[in-house]
Amino acid sequence: MAYFGEVPGFPEGSEFDSRESVRVAELHRHKISGIAGKAAEGADAIILNEGYEDDEDLGDLIIYTGEGGRDSNKGHQIADQLLIKGNAALVNSLLHGFPVRVIRGNKLKSPYAPATGYRYDGLYSVTSHWTEKGKSGFNIIRFKLEKISGEIPPHTNKNIPIGNRNPETKTSVVTRTIRDSNITRAIKELYDDACQVCGIQITCEGGTYSEGAHIWPIGKPHHGSDTLDNVLCLCPNHHAQYDRGGFGVADNFSLINIPGSLNVIPEHEIDIRNLRYHRSLFPDLENK
Amino acid sequence: MAYFGEVPGFPEGSEFDSRESVRVAELHRHKISGIAGKAAEGADAIILNEGYEDDEDLGDLIIYTGEGGRDSNKGHQIADQLLIKGNAALVNSLLHGFPVRVIRGNKLKSPYAPATGYRYDGLYSVTSHWTEKGKSGFNIIRFKLEKISGEIPPHTNKNIPIGNRNPETKTSVVTRTIRDSNITRAIKELYDDACQVCGIQITCEGGTYSEGAHIWPIGKPHHGSDTLDNVLCLCPNHHAQYDRGGFGVADNFSLINIPGSLNVIPEHEIDIRNLRYHRSLFPDLENK
Repeated sequence: MAYFGEVPGFPEGSEFDSRESVRVAELHRHKISGIAGKAAEGADAIILNEGYEDDEDLGDLIIYTGEGGRDSNKGHQIADQLLIKGNAALVNSLLHGFPVRVIRGNKLKSPYAPATGYRYDGLYSVTSHWTEKGKSGFNIIRFKLEKISGEIPPHTNKNIPIGNRNPETKTSVVTRTIRDSNITRAIKELYDDACQVCGIQITCEGGTYSEGAHIWPIGKPHHGSDTLDNVLCLCPNHHAQYDRGGFGVADNFSLINIPGSLNVIPEHEIDIRNLRYHRSLFPDLENK
Repeated sequence: MAYFGEVPGFPEGSEFDSRESVRVAELHRHKISGIAGKAAEGADAIILNEGYEDDEDLGDLIIYTGEGGRDSNKGHQIADQLLIKGNAALVNSLLHGFPVRVIRGNKLKSPYAPATGYRYDGLYSVTSHWTEKGKSGFNIIRFKLEKISGEIPPHTNKNIPIGNRNPETKTSVVTRTIRDSNITRAIKELYDDACQVCGIQITCEGGTYSEGAHIWPIGKPHHGSDTLDNVLCLCPNHHAQYDRGGFGVADNFSLINIPGSLNVIPEHEIDIRNLRYHRSLFPDLENK
């Protein structure tokens, strides 16, 4: 069963001489797979060891490639990766905010790899996932993981936690992409806070509310532009759903996976390439 | 007209010998009011000088009291503050993400006050607002402002900005309240990601999505508890609306300001005091 969060007795930085000792310590329960977890319960740990050559390890930010589709030596990609097993478990952790233990092995090509054996490097959040063509031409599924600061008490799927009556505040260093608040402001003014998908305006005390949603995601690793031709005015629901691949927008602005079409006013020139890039991130949206 | 963001020639830290020179530099256009801005266009600047005794200035985090209801010497509160004029302008900035210039004066009782004159201290976001009883027994409106790291180019309400094709990443230090991800996870599992207000489950690639919404807000200055009896499972739309006072929940779980009632399952014991505290933050919800 999945067991999320810190494992008592093994704080961040704990070192292990072998993969088997990582398993015995219950930090990662699988003998071979990189991802520990099942689709229905979520992933609670990953091991970064050999890995894919296009993985990126920036320490607090990791771009991790999913599993499956490789030949028996785990050398070459010979088929598409699918949203099943460990990959589906990591998406479950993304959608539900489950913390994932990250263990690095010495074969990892990264300045953060341990010199020998394995090291537990703390808890990460899965903050996005997408599909792209690997060097082989087959689909690979990728995950963005960001380090969590602050302690997360251990927890399994089955018990209801008590929580914290006096949650602490903590100072931490984060790396963010600077968004130009003028852009999200301009898009909300163009549409008067009405969602371009459903037309809803969220009514709050003192006014209405909407969100500026980037079509081609900004920040690592997608590096979309923070410009009006790459932003939509969406309600929070359609923003959350769009970012997580729940629907897409076709070149003619009809919606993919949900009914209807995007409301676009003449003053708002959307760059069609941005819509295409977003669709390319989710196979369900690209093949329709 | 409102003019948001940095004013060219006056970077953060610029000092001024008088309030009039702050006005001439166009950092804050009013001669007397603390808040510069109109309800329809948003507030672009505030001055912290004498201020209310229960204002809190923690440097990067400011709890600021709105305007109105004081006697002509601005000494005593003699009536409720209302969501009009400068107060409504600050709420507009909150809902639309407008950056607010913060200027501190030497009469401010704070370790961050300048020794003499006035100092421009950079851009802040208004991140929440609420109403509370002041020491006088009258309602006062309060605002939480948090410092923005990174540059925001200047912008007025009328021109459409170009934006940034290559937004930068920047490292900054932030203070956050540590949330126990087990709590939000537990609430989502109890309701299977269905919103307790509208029943919607947001469908994404690989699963459904919902949010754990705190009833009594956690973090400064409210310090609610991060426990199951203080959390709701909401869709992002109802979460955004609840946090911004668009609706409330009565003691019998009927909804205030919107139709219907909250779906609460027996395993989920909500502490009624938390619902009351949330309602007390917004006069529209308390008087019904």
